[in-house]
Amino acid sequence: MKWSNSFLFTLKEDPSDAEIPSHKLMVRGGYIRKVAPGIFSYGPLALRAIRKFENIVREELESRGAIEILMPMVQPKELWDETGRWTQMGESLQKMKNRTGAHFCLGATHEEVVTDFVRQQIKSYRDFPFNLYQIQTKFRDEIRPRFGLMRGREFVMKDAYSFDLDFENAQKSYQLMKQAYQAIFDRLGIEYRVVQADTGSIGGNQSEEFHILASSGEDELLVSDQGSFAANVEICPVQKKNIGNLVQTTLLPLETFSTPGVRTIKALAEFMEVGENELVKTMFFSVSEDVNQIKPVALLLRGSDEVNPIKLKNLLGLANPPILLTEKEVHGVTGAWPGSCGPVGLNIPVYLDEAVASMTNYVVGANKDDFHTKNVNHGRDFAVVKVADLRMAKEGDIGPEGGILKSYRGIEVGHIFYLGQKYSKAMKAQFLDSNGKLEPIEMGCYGIGVTRTVQAVIEQCHDKDGIVWPLSIAPFHIHICLLDPEDPSTHQAAEEVYQKLKEQKIDVFMDDRKERPGVKFKDADLLGMPYRLNIGTRGLINGEVEIIERRTKKMIKIPLNKVLDKMKNLLGSE
Amino acid sequence: MKWSNSFLFTLKEDPSDAEIPSHKLMVRGGYIRKVAPGIFSYGPLALRAIRKFENIVREELESRGAIEILMPMVQPKELWDETGRWTQMGESLQKMKNRTGAHFCLGATHEEVVTDFVRQQIKSYRDFPFNLYQIQTKFRDEIRPRFGLMRGREFVMKDAYSFDLDFENAQKSYQLMKQAYQAIFDRLGIEYRVVQADTGSIGGNQSEEFHILASSGEDELLVSDQGSFAANVEICPVQKKNIGNLVQTTLLPLETFSTPGVRTIKALAEFMEVGENELVKTMFFSVSEDVNQIKPVALLLRGSDEVNPIKLKNLLGLANPPILLTEKEVHGVTGAWPGSCGPVGLNIPVYLDEAVASMTNYVVGANKDDFHTKNVNHGRDFAVVKVADLRMAKEGDIGPEGGILKSYRGIEVGHIFYLGQKYSKAMKAQFLDSNGKLEPIEMGCYGIGVTRTVQAVIEQCHDKDGIVWPLSIAPFHIHICLLDPEDPSTHQAAEEVYQKLKEQKIDVFMDDRKERPGVKFKDADLLGMPYRLNIGTRGLINGEVEIIERRTKKMIKIPLNKVLDKMKNLLGSE
Repeated sequence: MKWSNSFLFTLKEDPSDAEIPSHKLMVRGGYIRKVAPGIFSYGPLALRAIRKFENIVREELESRGAIEILMPMVQPKELWDETGRWTQMGESLQKMKNRTGAHFCLGATHEEVVTDFVRQQIKSYRDFPFNLYQIQTKFRDEIRPRFGLMRGREFVMKDAYSFDLDFENAQKSYQLMKQAYQAIFDRLGIEYRVVQADTGSIGGNQSEEFHILASSGEDELLVSDQGSFAANVEICPVQKKNIGNLVQTTLLPLETFSTPGVRTIKALAEFMEVGENELVKTMFFSVSEDVNQIKPVALLLRGSDEVNPIKLKNLLGLANPPILLTEKEVHGVTGAWPGSCGPVGLNIPVYLDEAVASMTNYVVGANKDDFHTKNVNHGRDFAVVKVADLRMAKEGDIGPEGGILKSYRGIEVGHIFYLGQKYSKAMKAQFLDSNGKLEPIEMGCYGIGVTRTVQAVIEQCHDKDGIVWPLSIAPFHIHICLLDPEDPSTHQAAEEVYQKLKEQKIDVFMDDRKERPGVKFKDADLLGMPYRLNIGTRGLINGEVEIIERRTKKMIKIPLNKVLDKMKNLLGSE
Repeated sequence: MKWSNSFLFTLKEDPSDAEIPSHKLMVRGGYIRKVAPGIFSYGPLALRAIRKFENIVREELESRGAIEILMPMVQPKELWDETGRWTQMGESLQKMKNRTGAHFCLGATHEEVVTDFVRQQIKSYRDFPFNLYQIQTKFRDEIRPRFGLMRGREFVMKDAYSFDLDFENAQKSYQLMKQAYQAIFDRLGIEYRVVQADTGSIGGNQSEEFHILASSGEDELLVSDQGSFAANVEICPVQKKNIGNLVQTTLLPLETFSTPGVRTIKALAEFMEVGENELVKTMFFSVSEDVNQIKPVALLLRGSDEVNPIKLKNLLGLANPPILLTEKEVHGVTGAWPGSCGPVGLNIPVYLDEAVASMTNYVVGANKDDFHTKNVNHGRDFAVVKVADLRMAKEGDIGPEGGILKSYRGIEVGHIFYLGQKYSKAMKAQFLDSNGKLEPIEMGCYGIGVTRTVQAVIEQCHDKDGIVWPLSIAPFHIHICLLDPEDPSTHQAAEEVYQKLKEQKIDVFMDDRKERPGVKFKDADLLGMPYRLNIGTRGLINGEVEIIERRTKKMIKIPLNKVLDKMKNLLGSE
């Protein structure tokens, strides 16, 4: 491809609405253009990177027997009603009515559609196992689209679904897909981690996420320095070993005292001259599945700990994480504003984090503005519904399988789930087993955010001057800077190199614009192809051209007639 | 691909909701499965045919300099408001509101989005010309989805858009795309026609359609037996030569007479013992752009002619074809029920088809039930707003460029439009010309229904036993019927042939199911791959296999060790 026929326009300025480097670089490099919040058009270079990644995905799935199909984006409500997800998915599921009044949604995921596709057709246990996948555009009405393709509304996804006769075979299918994913991300040539994860609205009870590491990643991953344990902080259990032992002391009588203007744990710790870990904070959540209705609970944590709403969700078996009460709602429940609230005297369920279980005579809000109560003891002063691990694990903690946890930031690009019979039972997707008995199918599902991965690669692979594509999905391997386009012999020499590289099936891009060398070099760095080839009149006098590696910026000069061999050598295609 | 890992299930019975052969065959062959009316999932074989066609399209466009991009399916209302098409497209544009209350639609076409993409980026006349295309899923809320993929709601389309500096260059781009389309449909290897066409809701004043010929085609095409004239009947002009000359007669006095029970032209012709072409029929349309409001006009045609609503639409400059008044609405306008209505005494605009202009002393309804009026003459008895060509041309007519018109049925699979400045003016998509003056861009747009084409190919290429794929987009070139899968040496021989063909990059499918030969042969005919290879124990005793050409059903026997060469030879790959 030549710049003169590529409809490519780079920008000098960062777009005002971009917060992270990869988003800025994709817009500045002309890779994407915004159509609406979270909705983009992809230029020719972005599309090439996307297609290359899709092909890697396709090859690794097909070599493991997965079968490509294509399901619709627009899906009828009836299918989603069968699993209850029409309501459960909430507002992120984009709904609409057609001209006849029928209800549809845009596919955010395809468990219902694929299960229907399968149940319509399978007959017996002899038809198993199989794995159906598609690469397709999906839509999710993100409450706050941001970060470009990273949290967009419309995006390209690969979703695969495995179907098996029983648990053992379903586990084999799951492991096979995990291998496929590892092969895919290995081939990408980037740093990634596989971590245990929450199953969210997809369901099931076993899932792992694939994260591309990047400092701006929205997820925190905790990885043990010994053994193989790695988990998203959302579900990372905290070992009891990390909690101090219960200090046996006499339970002292309750005492309420004035704490004027003290509204935070930090302020309280200073006021009382104690550590934040010696204080207890009370948080209030609504655990109702209906967003229009409040069902408050209180949760007690050490002052130094952070609540983990996913753990509370899973403890209570909710579909979505519980929502923090607003200040006004808290006031309605406790009679005081946040900062002065505590568990004593409330008539709502109280949950205790394990780290609080070992504490005695602690301080909490008095449910009276500007007052706290000391010598509080659970059991004696208020009833506890359940003690559980409800806080965030932290870097430095002892891991559940030993070792010390280290923290990483990651961008979730893949997620694999063992679903079991969740969908097959709800949708009566059954088969006749060898005894002629109807059994529900065992399922798994496996997603990769295709467009998100492409941007996540940039988020990991860039420097101050622009993108640094890995060879695996670089839109082009070579970026020729034709330095003197108006000199006929230089132009011809560049054209010949360009054509020869193309003949060798090497992906080559040529900047043939009438621009100064400085402009071309800057744009080449911004666009980020792995190798730049400078072809100019001055070099050609000595019969030479320059090859610059984008990552290291190392330059070598080589004779014009050796370019082809050298490039093939560098690209490992020979 | 082997049947045992293809998730392929054929059906013995035609689906109850399928009306045409290609729809029935796609469902019976497991190519597609319905998800909702007009919405389908594509199985692995259909997807292969689709991808092959996409690649033909891509190659022919790219070799002519078109640049592939990808635009979103979900599009903001604001862009459609700029051109007025948010309302003009009517209910076929699927609209929705997101969680923030913003309005979006599903892309049925992308003129607005691509024009926005371009105007955001281009700077000067130096950036021209260029042609941007995409292959993408589109949605149109068809009022009556039917015929499978032929008139579906969700479908895959290739849409290209050309951008030029001026009319001459835009015409060159148009012709280049026309050549690309001819190359595409030539490569498909099917019978097709290019015809002049109406521009519909896309607009502009020059367009041509590409039709795959098939007896069930929804469109009638009229093609001259001399010269190059060909047009969709919708816009085919009727030559005045086809009208008899005005017979000079004395205008006789009006006379109303009783015609009890005579309500059709046919009945009237019998009643009066004259030809239908000697009578005049009066039709009533609403020409309001607002569907909730009626704006009646009357249209007079010879009794033997058929009205062409597209011609009336274009005469009046409407966005959508006018709608026939209901019987009740006609009664409201004329005071009589249809069958007894005529133009005399009405106070609505009357349009006259050219063929009526030459008539005198004719018979029309009297606007009184069971009465007609004779000796009616326009001008004298009622005023005419306009005389125009408003009827359907017919097979046997003299064509506009001479020759006799012949009628074909076609399925519209491609449509190319010269748009001019319709969108660029409405959306202020301008460039600085060489004098520094802002000028609107000249545009063209070019669509191919990808999924529709695949089914239209089947509609043309099938026989009573199933599909007869042309080589160009056959999911597989060869269908191996392994006849004795449980015989190890036969199985091994077939496996070796299968692997060798795959090594040669020949697309091969193997039916390795444990089924009787008869079942396999029937399914092979149904699925329709160009060549079937029977490999069975009986043949192998003589060292032979059978090759059957699907189209002709001709069978040849050849030695096992010559299969590879023979197939390469038949497929023209050597």
